[in-house]
Amino acid sequence: MSEADWGAQAQAWLDRLAQCSEPGPGVTRLPFSPEHRAALAVLTELMREAGLSVSLDAAGTLIGRCDGPPGAPALLMGSHQDSVCEGGGYDGIMGVVVCALAMMKLRADGFVPPFAVEVLAFADEEGVRFPTALMGPRVLADTFDMAALELRDGAGQALREAMAGFGLAPDALPGLKRDPAQVLGWIECHLEQGPVLEDEGLTLGVVTAISGIERHSVRLTGQAAHAGTVPMSLRRDALAAAAEIVLAVERVARESDGVLATVGMLELRPGVVNAVPGEVALTIEIRSPSDAVRAGAAEEITARVAEIATRRQIAHAITRSYAQPATPCDPSLRDLLSGAVHATTGRARLLPSGATHDTSAMADLCPVGMIFTACAGGISHHPAETVPMTALHDAVLAMAGAVTAIARRVGETAP
Amino acid sequence: MSEADWGAQAQAWLDRLAQCSEPGPGVTRLPFSPEHRAALAVLTELMREAGLSVSLDAAGTLIGRCDGPPGAPALLMGSHQDSVCEGGGYDGIMGVVVCALAMMKLRADGFVPPFAVEVLAFADEEGVRFPTALMGPRVLADTFDMAALELRDGAGQALREAMAGFGLAPDALPGLKRDPAQVLGWIECHLEQGPVLEDEGLTLGVVTAISGIERHSVRLTGQAAHAGTVPMSLRRDALAAAAEIVLAVERVARESDGVLATVGMLELRPGVVNAVPGEVALTIEIRSPSDAVRAGAAEEITARVAEIATRRQIAHAITRSYAQPATPCDPSLRDLLSGAVHATTGRARLLPSGATHDTSAMADLCPVGMIFTACAGGISHHPAETVPMTALHDAVLAMAGAVTAIARRVGETAP
Repeated sequence: MSEADWGAQAQAWLDRLAQCSEPGPGVTRLPFSPEHRAALAVLTELMREAGLSVSLDAAGTLIGRCDGPPGAPALLMGSHQDSVCEGGGYDGIMGVVVCALAMMKLRADGFVPPFAVEVLAFADEEGVRFPTALMGPRVLADTFDMAALELRDGAGQALREAMAGFGLAPDALPGLKRDPAQVLGWIECHLEQGPVLEDEGLTLGVVTAISGIERHSVRLTGQAAHAGTVPMSLRRDALAAAAEIVLAVERVARESDGVLATVGMLELRPGVVNAVPGEVALTIEIRSPSDAVRAGAAEEITARVAEIATRRQIAHAITRSYAQPATPCDPSLRDLLSGAVHATTGRARLLPSGATHDTSAMADLCPVGMIFTACAGGISHHPAETVPMTALHDAVLAMAGAVTAIARRVGETAP
Repeated sequence: MSEADWGAQAQAWLDRLAQCSEPGPGVTRLPFSPEHRAALAVLTELMREAGLSVSLDAAGTLIGRCDGPPGAPALLMGSHQDSVCEGGGYDGIMGVVVCALAMMKLRADGFVPPFAVEVLAFADEEGVRFPTALMGPRVLADTFDMAALELRDGAGQALREAMAGFGLAPDALPGLKRDPAQVLGWIECHLEQGPVLEDEGLTLGVVTAISGIERHSVRLTGQAAHAGTVPMSLRRDALAAAAEIVLAVERVARESDGVLATVGMLELRPGVVNAVPGEVALTIEIRSPSDAVRAGAAEEITARVAEIATRRQIAHAITRSYAQPATPCDPSLRDLLSGAVHATTGRARLLPSGATHDTSAMADLCPVGMIFTACAGGISHHPAETVPMTALHDAVLAMAGAVTAIARRVGETAP
């Protein structure tokens, strides 16, 4: 089999799966929908070709399983099947295809792992249809809140009803929880959704952690004033203070290793051409793979906001509206994945994941690891989302390599 | 008559005039309305008490006239009667009351000027009811566009109809134009609408010029991005560029003598907590009493915008959307008013007017001069608008003093 084949094969499956979409630009495939059903049919075909036995669990997760020796634990791998509205054809679904093809490759190579392997296609990672997400992995990790079954979609249908309509048994969810002792780990393949790998000419990278996130709301109150009658020296311009804050946030992030910080919203009042802005509301988001580093950046930003507001005689209020700790990847799985990526591409670029993934929820069950593929222009959640075929190819080889490496490690540590 | 009396008298008339308002907070007195009619009755009473003969011209300007020798030219003084919606009780109307009381004082002093004096209460300076303004002074200066008579208010009534309903003859407007040779000049008294005089503990100031204004629209286009996946070094954050521009605009104004510059509007897209802003639209307004200084500041700001955008790899477009040249006050009237203000208050603080006034339009007819009174907290166009009684008192003395000074000058230069 030639070097380029896995990329072309992956792309062919992804092209078929991209057809499982609501009409309109890009891919729209929401959980428990006819498009979800259509995608499961294609994935079932792929998993069977990979030699896996296929089942659908009560959460709508498609499972392609390769049994191991009796009583052996399972390695879980995969990603999610769903997309955002008018999203791309790679986010989530690519990981399922890559993992299934990796199992196909191992089978073609005659490799039989000394454990079970399950390729999972979770129903709902994006949380677009219902105001909840990650049900599949949460059910496995026993962290799913059953009250979420009553949440409703935009059409007024409850999650419980949508699942029942899809032929699933929501009340059976608690029975899906896995025994951590029977799970070796979870490894996911996902597109980066950022420009780092492409920028460095790489096809693959290894995730160190899912970054923690905190969000702050800042309110600045100066004095609205006539732009023609109040001298510069007597102004208390809330927007000028906000401008200093925007630049301070940027500077703190640039000077802190691995911190991303963003002012994404900024609204001013009165907001007319001939008035000095008297009030500004803005948001600050801070992400880092290290909670300690993130806390340090937040502290520094908070101090800068206070200093700027005080110096400009602007009243300020800053409130932390959201916080989610980082999810570090398992060091051992990270090293195994690094080895497999290095063997495939000649380099193992480590990078954090700024976005949440199924891996975030799987970390409550077992050791987790994750690889990223490059994506063109860093673009994701958009019809233009593209993963180069070379990256698809390398991803199949790296995931297959990771399974063999895990098998080697299991062999080394077996009693 | 004791020192404080003119302030108390002015305040008593202003209290009565503040009752000539639509219901609601503050004063709402639109042109050609029942409230305008009510104010004219009070002003007529005041002007008659000041010994003036009262008439209403076809533009709705109330004229209180003190005749001079046959064939002598007239000195015009006053301000406007109308208010903004829910405005204060001083903007415009205070100048009419102060000028009428100044004439009352001169009469009490037995002073007879060697020219006619007319105290004018223009109908519409604010332009709140109809999308036009300054009709009264423009008619006198022969710069009024008769097509504006067809403009309609929010209720669909044309200006022409509203005037006719008020008993005026819109078609007679062209006949109101004055012969410049018969007008000595125009002097106005108005509240500052800014904090400068109060900040320096002054009651009065002398206007050097009505500042020119230019407005620019700036559009910045970077790259919207996921706040969790794009490293700081690869971002093209339109808001960070905008923040630098806001601070550059402030800095250029602070470093240029007499320039006010303001970013009053700023809108960003996508404008969500977890996205790097890709697009920002903002406005820059620049005001200066000197057109050359304003042009220099605009040039510097434009260069800074280009430098910031280029350095940050942000596409930018900057368009001048509006420009209105400065209206310098007549140097001779300015000096006369300075002398009168100095004689009254011990100091003659010169300052530009950032806002447009009747004086702006009168400058097309004759030499113009203007004094400002302090106003509490710089607040105007608001129910809390207040001019201290000491400033009202000083304004009456200064305007009376200006008339006597002009009389002295006319006497000196008479053939």
